[in-house]
Amino acid sequence: MTPSRIYNFGAGPAMLPEAILLEAQAELLNWQHSGMAVFETSHRSAEFEALIREAEADLRDLLHIPPNYKVLFLSGSARSQFSMIPLNFINEHKQAGYLISGVWSALAYDEAVKLKQAYCLGNSDDQGHFYKAPAVDVNKLQDNTSYVYYTPNETVNGVRFPSPPKLPGIPLIADMTSCLLTEPLVIKDYGLIFAGAQKNIAPAGLTLVIVADELLQTITNHPLPTMLDYRVHTKNGSLYATPAHV
Amino acid sequence: MTPSRIYNFGAGPAMLPEAILLEAQAELLNWQHSGMAVFETSHRSAEFEALIREAEADLRDLLHIPPNYKVLFLSGSARSQFSMIPLNFINEHKQAGYLISGVWSALAYDEAVKLKQAYCLGNSDDQGHFYKAPAVDVNKLQDNTSYVYYTPNETVNGVRFPSPPKLPGIPLIADMTSCLLTEPLVIKDYGLIFAGAQKNIAPAGLTLVIVADELLQTITNHPLPTMLDYRVHTKNGSLYATPAHV
Repeated sequence: MTPSRIYNFGAGPAMLPEAILLEAQAELLNWQHSGMAVFETSHRSAEFEALIREAEADLRDLLHIPPNYKVLFLSGSARSQFSMIPLNFINEHKQAGYLISGVWSALAYDEAVKLKQAYCLGNSDDQGHFYKAPAVDVNKLQDNTSYVYYTPNETVNGVRFPSPPKLPGIPLIADMTSCLLTEPLVIKDYGLIFAGAQKNIAPAGLTLVIVADELLQTITNHPLPTMLDYRVHTKNGSLYATPAHV
Repeated sequence: MTPSRIYNFGAGPAMLPEAILLEAQAELLNWQHSGMAVFETSHRSAEFEALIREAEADLRDLLHIPPNYKVLFLSGSARSQFSMIPLNFINEHKQAGYLISGVWSALAYDEAVKLKQAYCLGNSDDQGHFYKAPAVDVNKLQDNTSYVYYTPNETVNGVRFPSPPKLPGIPLIADMTSCLLTEPLVIKDYGLIFAGAQKNIAPAGLTLVIVADELLQTITNHPLPTMLDYRVHTKNGSLYATPAHV
């Protein structure tokens, strides 16, 4: 490591590999001999299209993402997903179950309750602290549950689920902001995985979503803010609007 | 200009000043002697807080922004504003008027109609083309109009309003994505100005909002997706969630 660099163990925006930083630095004024920085390049250009498709192919390769899953590169922080998930997947005939194991899952649950119908399927809150993941009692699952949401790794509280909850027939949605790409995953165990990129993957400003076609097909035609509609982003290959690009 | 650099006159992500790029390049692995890239730095750190406050102070200085206006640095593209504006400022007792002068204002109007009550106050569509800005007839203003929306400069259609429409007593909202910081402005003529940063200001991934306190105070307590609530971002000085930072 370059001597001037320091180690950053923070749970927020984290260190990126020095080899990547050096490449970005070398090409900052002239990306791929284009005469421009990558962030000066049109997202409608063949070069940028190739870049985003290469990133998708690499991610599919690393995580063994099956072809019946879409990969989305979205702008807006991971917190935007707290709203997008209930707005897309809960309609007037459906509800969702939430597992609360710390600050982030509690915030996601509050957002779902504010916008749609949701219930708590398990909560390990112990007088304002969290020491373990909640037990999952499948007998508590309500009718018309469109998904169960959880946070495999809670950074603020240091609580981790040892393995994904088993919920036969109900899609599992996981906020993997602090753990995506730190370990192997069985993607088909999940209906949707999302992660703000700034901890393990890329600079802040990008949110990754991996979502099953089957779950996307459950979205019904209720009016959604266009930028919060997963179908808009899948149809446009993450390029509906100008994406954050660094 | 460095010989390897080219001129980019595109209406999408545009050229940034070479002096800024060289500074970013020099400090890419070690921003302000911190031992980290700026995008590896916590947005909760004193250094990042100072950076965002300096950017705000510079913008206030350049545009003579009065103290009764908030400046927001938001993630998500300018298209997110197409939803945020009606969701925040139109409730069940209000509506909004839209001036349509090209592709972007038409998209903003469609979004407002999808989500809330809005009407067209003027439209210069001439058999699918736009050759001029629409005339503004104040007698067409409907009761309970909470704002009038327009796009001063339409990139796709090349249509420009010579001056802001005069609408006494009704806040004017302007999409200045393609013209902010290209000319002097009288901020108090507007209730809200927004701009995707990638054309004139900064890399893609940042959206600037300048909004009057008086307009913010008209937001009523209806359930809004948290990341689409202007009050959340003003209360948190644009740092509610991890911002895009390059």
